[in-house]
Amino acid sequence: MSNNDTKFLWNCWYAAGWEHEVAEAEKLERTFLGKPVVIFKGESGRYIALDNRCCHRGAPLGMGRIEGDCIRCMYHGLKFDPQGICVEIPGQDKIPASHKVRSYPIEERGNLLWIWMGDPALANTDDIIDYAPLSDPEWQGLPKQCYLHYDCNWMLIIDNLADFSHLAFVHTNTLGGSEAYAVETKQEIERLERGFQFERWHRESAPAPYHLKVNPDESPTVDRRNYVQMFVPGVFLMETAFGPVGWDQSADHSAVKQYRNCQYMTPETENTAHFFWDYLRNYRQDEEAVSISLRDSLLEGFWEDKVIIEAQQKLLELEDPFQPRGIAADSALAHFRKVWDELLEDQRVNHPPKQIEVTRSIL
Amino acid sequence: MSNNDTKFLWNCWYAAGWEHEVAEAEKLERTFLGKPVVIFKGESGRYIALDNRCCHRGAPLGMGRIEGDCIRCMYHGLKFDPQGICVEIPGQDKIPASHKVRSYPIEERGNLLWIWMGDPALANTDDIIDYAPLSDPEWQGLPKQCYLHYDCNWMLIIDNLADFSHLAFVHTNTLGGSEAYAVETKQEIERLERGFQFERWHRESAPAPYHLKVNPDESPTVDRRNYVQMFVPGVFLMETAFGPVGWDQSADHSAVKQYRNCQYMTPETENTAHFFWDYLRNYRQDEEAVSISLRDSLLEGFWEDKVIIEAQQKLLELEDPFQPRGIAADSALAHFRKVWDELLEDQRVNHPPKQIEVTRSIL
Amino acid sequence: MSNNDTKFLWNCWYAAGWEHEVAEAEKLERTFLGKPVVIFKGESGRYIALDNRCCHRGAPLGMGRIEGDCIRCMYHGLKFDPQGICVEIPGQDKIPASHKVRSYPIEERGNLLWIWMGDPALANTDDIIDYAPLSDPEWQGLPKQCYLHYDCNWMLIIDNLADFSHLAFVHTNTLGGSEAYAVETKQEIERLERGFQFERWHRESAPAPYHLKVNPDESPTVDRRNYVQMFVPGVFLMETAFGPVGWDQSADHSAVKQYRNCQYMTPETENTAHFFWDYLRNYRQDEEAVSISLRDSLLEGFWEDKVIIEAQQKLLELEDPFQPRGIAADSALAHFRKVWDELLEDQRVNHPPKQIEVTRSIL
Repeated sequence: MSNNDTKFLWNCWYAAGWEHEVAEAEKLERTFLGKPVVIFKGESGRYIALDNRCCHRGAPLGMGRIEGDCIRCMYHGLKFDPQGICVEIPGQDKIPASHKVRSYPIEERGNLLWIWMGDPALANTDDIIDYAPLSDPEWQGLPKQCYLHYDCNWMLIIDNLADFSHLAFVHTNTLGGSEAYAVETKQEIERLERGFQFERWHRESAPAPYHLKVNPDESPTVDRRNYVQMFVPGVFLMETAFGPVGWDQSADHSAVKQYRNCQYMTPETENTAHFFWDYLRNYRQDEEAVSISLRDSLLEGFWEDKVIIEAQQKLLELEDPFQPRGIAADSALAHFRKVWDELLEDQRVNHPPKQIEVTRSIL
Repeated sequence: MSNNDTKFLWNCWYAAGWEHEVAEAEKLERTFLGKPVVIFKGESGRYIALDNRCCHRGAPLGMGRIEGDCIRCMYHGLKFDPQGICVEIPGQDKIPASHKVRSYPIEERGNLLWIWMGDPALANTDDIIDYAPLSDPEWQGLPKQCYLHYDCNWMLIIDNLADFSHLAFVHTNTLGGSEAYAVETKQEIERLERGFQFERWHRESAPAPYHLKVNPDESPTVDRRNYVQMFVPGVFLMETAFGPVGWDQSADHSAVKQYRNCQYMTPETENTAHFFWDYLRNYRQDEEAVSISLRDSLLEGFWEDKVIIEAQQKLLELEDPFQPRGIAADSALAHFRKVWDELLEDQRVNHPPKQIEVTRSIL
Repeated sequence: MSNNDTKFLWNCWYAAGWEHEVAEAEKLERTFLGKPVVIFKGESGRYIALDNRCCHRGAPLGMGRIEGDCIRCMYHGLKFDPQGICVEIPGQDKIPASHKVRSYPIEERGNLLWIWMGDPALANTDDIIDYAPLSDPEWQGLPKQCYLHYDCNWMLIIDNLADFSHLAFVHTNTLGGSEAYAVETKQEIERLERGFQFERWHRESAPAPYHLKVNPDESPTVDRRNYVQMFVPGVFLMETAFGPVGWDQSADHSAVKQYRNCQYMTPETENTAHFFWDYLRNYRQDEEAVSISLRDSLLEGFWEDKVIIEAQQKLLELEDPFQPRGIAADSALAHFRKVWDELLEDQRVNHPPKQIEVTRSIL
């Protein structure tokens, strides 16, 4: 067990990649929670996730060859089945039971792959947060679901998303609209056992720039509604709607344009992270130009975040100690971190990560 | 308090940057003694130096916005006054007294900014080494005062400057002139409480190449005088003069061409350094071509130093232990390091750097 | 003594470089076993290897100037003789006996330089493994003997070479020929006191691609023989022959085409390595196109190894612990590592590396 193992929460489902990423890479080598994994689609169509290190000498299975639902290491030819069991060693009849690599539960929901890095016995696929719009033809997503790599602790991205006041300053000209957004609208969150949610109305204000770009005839003054949910370990779901001044949820809202936004943060290592996202809409679904414009606008906004968050990460990594000071707008992130700490403590007491015993070392 | 804190001397003024650097960067993000600082000029014209990390979540104030003499963090909008006190939190009425960033005393002298990284209560602006030629119209400096970044401990640059024998070998064809320079002229230094000084005459010798380049009619044989001063923490001041054989300081020296050279070494981190310098002359002050030639010649020489010093740094960083052996020419650097060690010891006993208590960590 | 010192075997000869490398670099700066060395050819024609750090301040002697069989540091002018003794300090009459750099025994055999990093009193040139074909005009080598740098522990390259089953998978289309090679031919090794050797026949099989490329008229089915030797610290010697089906060593084999292959692994640091190699043949010695084709084929194969080995190194460096599992084909590498461990244990007991006492530190 490495020292970092106690910093991660093991027994939950993490977003691992989009289906198209695995299709393009064939064997997708990706690290989660500090552990190197190879993900591939077996010839039967099922997804398989194994420790990327061949049990023989640690060579990458990601450089291997898919054979049926197995993968063969192309260093010395060992072959592993979907459970990670070594089923062939060239030139050797008997295969010891110890010859296996770890296999990770992996599931697909709405084109997104979910991996379970903890104790497989505790994995329950009912716990996967399956975001309905990803599978619903009424909702049109981006031309391709997106991925960004962040040079930061994944929790900094969660902090970022948990605090809407940053929209006013970081994204004034892209996703936000005005600095007033930070001041006018107090954010009251509903604390959940594994996260939080809140609804936020921004009434009689200019529509956000990214929305205006694809709706140039939009009214200059609209009511904007956001409904946000954040769940452990790093799932951000948001409904966004722009409608005529005075509209509300209960009434008819055929004139309201709606979006569905999902973002997933998964730790790669302690200080690097995976970020997956899609942005869906329920209007003009067949116009690819709209999808492309939305993707580019969102990406522009995420890059605004990425630049400041990665700078923040570097400043926090300095030896010079830093004592953060809370503000009122932190209520969401503070609650999320409290939930996280409680789950870590529960893990420490009830499900400590198992230590792997190493009796020989190659290096 | 980080472990490195005891390696630095805190209570003294360090060269921090040239005025034109701040003007060009608007918000100059620079690290001193391992601490990240942002320097900017308030709208009132005063210089302000703050911890570059917003007290909220550590985002860089250097990505912020100057408002009057304040700076606003463009992550969540906190605004800090010149003393580093948080004077505005968007959407929040009450601001706790703990919400502030550290403010560092900063002063301008002769276009150079000086920063005090230690206890502000001990900062006395009379202690700033204000080099008169930088503000004296009789002395013409380079087109722009210069900056170099070094990948080495700043003391290696001080060592370099403290030992003139290196001129003979490193700078034979640029700043030195001949290898004889190392042998012929013994260097006797005057030990000072916070540094050293020495005068050095190199009589009846060829003028240095950089001087000859801008004075092609110079006599083939001249007397060269250097007067060198080095002070804690890393201030190198040198008078250089080339005159007819036999000239001396007391007599008339209208035929003598004089230079004034200032160089400042400031630790960025333990193993990287800032290096600021200017090179002034008292003749043909209005000829920019002379300034440019001098800058290029000096820069050529400094690059000769930089290449060897950075190679030296890498060799000293190796795990393989290295025991240095002194030579007679080390007297200046040995005295300077002795002074330094005594000041560090005094700091340890009388002014140990205060430990910042961190009760929460973001990463 | 650094912590890594006990991981290296000091008292043996290591391949250090080809003669042409020293000729081209003039002063070859190279690190062995974590120690920085400069190698140069004195004007008398002898090779000299010294600690690359001038004893004064650690500046690189590799930036120095060769004077006779001495080298002068071009920082402050100290001059060192072939034994590493300081024989001149500019401007100083007396030179303390402590002023010296370490000198390493270095010998040339067949254009290859061998260095002894351990106790010079134990160095016996009879122990150098002088590979006869390198000096034998019957054997034609590559246009220039080759060097590759590896970002891995040198033992991973030895592992690679010790296990022929990798030829089948890594080099199927270059040096191997078919995956059957891994299965059909069991490898029985002869254990030696300082390594191992084995003979391997691969009968009635297609000739290897690299051989076919320079012998397009080769019979489609040949008997291939390999005779491999591996010795401490990292010397791999191999005879390879392709002949008509049914040929054997004792009979006439004028129709057999033979190769001699030498490869040398030397640790640079714990996790980086030097790799030297040549590939010689006893036919069409005067055709440079054959030499070039062989070099390119071999290089292609070595790059196949390098890519997978360096990926393996990165996976083994992860904090995540890795427990290797042996297979039958490991017998050679397992024996070699056993020999190595025994020699390390003997070194620990009988010849522990001497600790250098450092009373002053520059950084």
